[in-house]
Amino acid sequence: MIALLTDFGLQDSYVGVMKAVILGICPGASIVDVTHAVEPQDVLGGALALEDSAPYLPEGTVVVAVVDPGVGSDRAALAARAGGRFWVGPDNGLLSWQLGPDATVVRAENPRYRLPAVSSTFHGRDVFAPVGAHLLRGVPIEELGPRVTSWVELPRPTPIRQPDGTLEAHVVAVDRFGNLILDLRATDLPPNPSFALATVRIHGLVRTYAEARGGPCALIGSSGRVEIAVPNGSAAAKLGASKGAVVRVSAA
Amino acid sequence: MIALLTDFGLQDSYVGVMKAVILGICPGASIVDVTHAVEPQDVLGGALALEDSAPYLPEGTVVVAVVDPGVGSDRAALAARAGGRFWVGPDNGLLSWQLGPDATVVRAENPRYRLPAVSSTFHGRDVFAPVGAHLLRGVPIEELGPRVTSWVELPRPTPIRQPDGTLEAHVVAVDRFGNLILDLRATDLPPNPSFALATVRIHGLVRTYAEARGGPCALIGSSGRVEIAVPNGSAAAKLGASKGAVVRVSAA
Amino acid sequence: MIALLTDFGLQDSYVGVMKAVILGICPGASIVDVTHAVEPQDVLGGALALEDSAPYLPEGTVVVAVVDPGVGSDRAALAARAGGRFWVGPDNGLLSWQLGPDATVVRAENPRYRLPAVSSTFHGRDVFAPVGAHLLRGVPIEELGPRVTSWVELPRPTPIRQPDGTLEAHVVAVDRFGNLILDLRATDLPPNPSFALATVRIHGLVRTYAEARGGPCALIGSSGRVEIAVPNGSAAAKLGASKGAVVRVSAA
Repeated sequence: MIALLTDFGLQDSYVGVMKAVILGICPGASIVDVTHAVEPQDVLGGALALEDSAPYLPEGTVVVAVVDPGVGSDRAALAARAGGRFWVGPDNGLLSWQLGPDATVVRAENPRYRLPAVSSTFHGRDVFAPVGAHLLRGVPIEELGPRVTSWVELPRPTPIRQPDGTLEAHVVAVDRFGNLILDLRATDLPPNPSFALATVRIHGLVRTYAEARGGPCALIGSSGRVEIAVPNGSAAAKLGASKGAVVRVSAA
Repeated sequence: MIALLTDFGLQDSYVGVMKAVILGICPGASIVDVTHAVEPQDVLGGALALEDSAPYLPEGTVVVAVVDPGVGSDRAALAARAGGRFWVGPDNGLLSWQLGPDATVVRAENPRYRLPAVSSTFHGRDVFAPVGAHLLRGVPIEELGPRVTSWVELPRPTPIRQPDGTLEAHVVAVDRFGNLILDLRATDLPPNPSFALATVRIHGLVRTYAEARGGPCALIGSSGRVEIAVPNGSAAAKLGASKGAVVRVSAA
Repeated sequence: MIALLTDFGLQDSYVGVMKAVILGICPGASIVDVTHAVEPQDVLGGALALEDSAPYLPEGTVVVAVVDPGVGSDRAALAARAGGRFWVGPDNGLLSWQLGPDATVVRAENPRYRLPAVSSTFHGRDVFAPVGAHLLRGVPIEELGPRVTSWVELPRPTPIRQPDGTLEAHVVAVDRFGNLILDLRATDLPPNPSFALATVRIHGLVRTYAEARGGPCALIGSSGRVEIAVPNGSAAAKLGASKGAVVRVSAA
């Protein structure tokens, strides 16, 4: 299968055209949309969505990820084999968290595996979709271009330890339900953690939304990240918080 | 084929991850999105969308439906065979209109057919998608867990007969075109029906949008429900109506 | 493969039901969404999206396109073979730019290739999806209904030559990134073109977004149309422009 992640949205025909290109090269491919709602040019948002979905992608999946503010410039197009999957996308950090020590990474510049005419504004169609489709039909990654050993690394958002021992965590995503997803995992937490966001203070973690009895709560979300939620409501709306908001974490 | 209906939206990677899980268990599955735009936690909205689409699902289709405000609580996960199709989802009424007298229903609790780690907030990924994929690849439903003979029934919205013989109908959905879809079918209608919504009165039914010549009209929509429409415009916007609005139906 | 383009949006189950109908007739079909976000009843918007995606659709693709304000009236349902692909949709101009001199066009009225009950409001489900699926499984187009030699032609938006020799071009689409897409191609341009939109004046074309160094720019977009863009920003928002806006083009 081939998994797509872009910031193209679904209002235009960009994603449909990428899929048509893929099926033209690799008929019968199973194509899965991870998401196309990454905010325009938000490389970090794309990297977070890749990280959360990666563990669930079947072995051998080809992931084509395109959040590409530098399209048409001289940034490289990368193709990689890492973690039992293939990764295709621009060299701007988007893929970097997936490229562990086992990674084989190439510059995908062999014109044979691109469309004959490459535009300067839509490499999703002209470069990344064809490269992904050729990998899926079995072209060896070494065929795509020269091996590289360095690429742009995207800094990973992390909570900041404060002089007083508390942690400053950050909202890195707000999902459809208004859950506030933090750059914080269970292993970062002190015992009996307490969370302060604007004027709201939340004591402890709940295990399920039901335990919270309607009020704001903190829990370990499905991606392993700590989330601030309002069950059957939107924490973003109720707490007036959005991406980038600061959450202070202390031991109760 | 496997059909998905959720309230997850498409802005996050939740739906993409469910599909990845399905294709990991059942490679080559044809996956169809019924819709993922059910309003968050709107079990009734989900049940209505299932009801309208069910007659068009091919025999043998596995439907995975997740609108699940009780995720992580002790509500059961159901799997059912009914009406020639399979149904998977939480026991909160969402599936109940599909479970006729011929239904075989089980609690899908056999850990063999879930992901190894089950989160407390995303059973779409950890429970319902795997159960659906295993049904699709032919696992007998009896393998999934113990048979049950009762489940949560969702009350069906129905028009209310008034003392004066008129009917009080309700807008149960507003579609993309702004059509107001009622809890009313052709068989509920008096001869020569007349419809009153706020200050607007509509006499009779039209058969097509063209017959209405631009004004507000009532017709039997594609789901068999009565709809109030403004051809080439939005009845919701033009009449200032939304879900829950009352439409009074009388004989002219 | 079968490609779908509609104005149905993804908030309702309309598109999902069309896909279920297709897979019921032609199991295992690869279905690609070109887009479903055409504005309601915007036949021109649908024709533009078809035109931009057509060159990338594999030979033999069946395209089902439904933007159909006349549904239920006596407008014909068309099926066509043209340019190596098949085209199915209402006779209202939507398909007309794809029907070149090589086109074989029929009125798809054979009841055998529709659903048994045809509603008067949802021919996407009852007529166009089944016709497309039957074409995909190999039914000869002549079987679908009688050949026709004329159909509704949609006027093509074109820039207007002014008495002073300049061109009046028009924004025909605004994409997700806020790029303003014009009814103008490279061949329409004078040497050293200059573009005026409201109070903004843009001199020359850039080849890539990077060359524009952040300011508003004009370039040949991925569809071959001239676009006005603001790299890493929205030209629509920054220039206060929307569909229909006029851009004056002159030689510098």
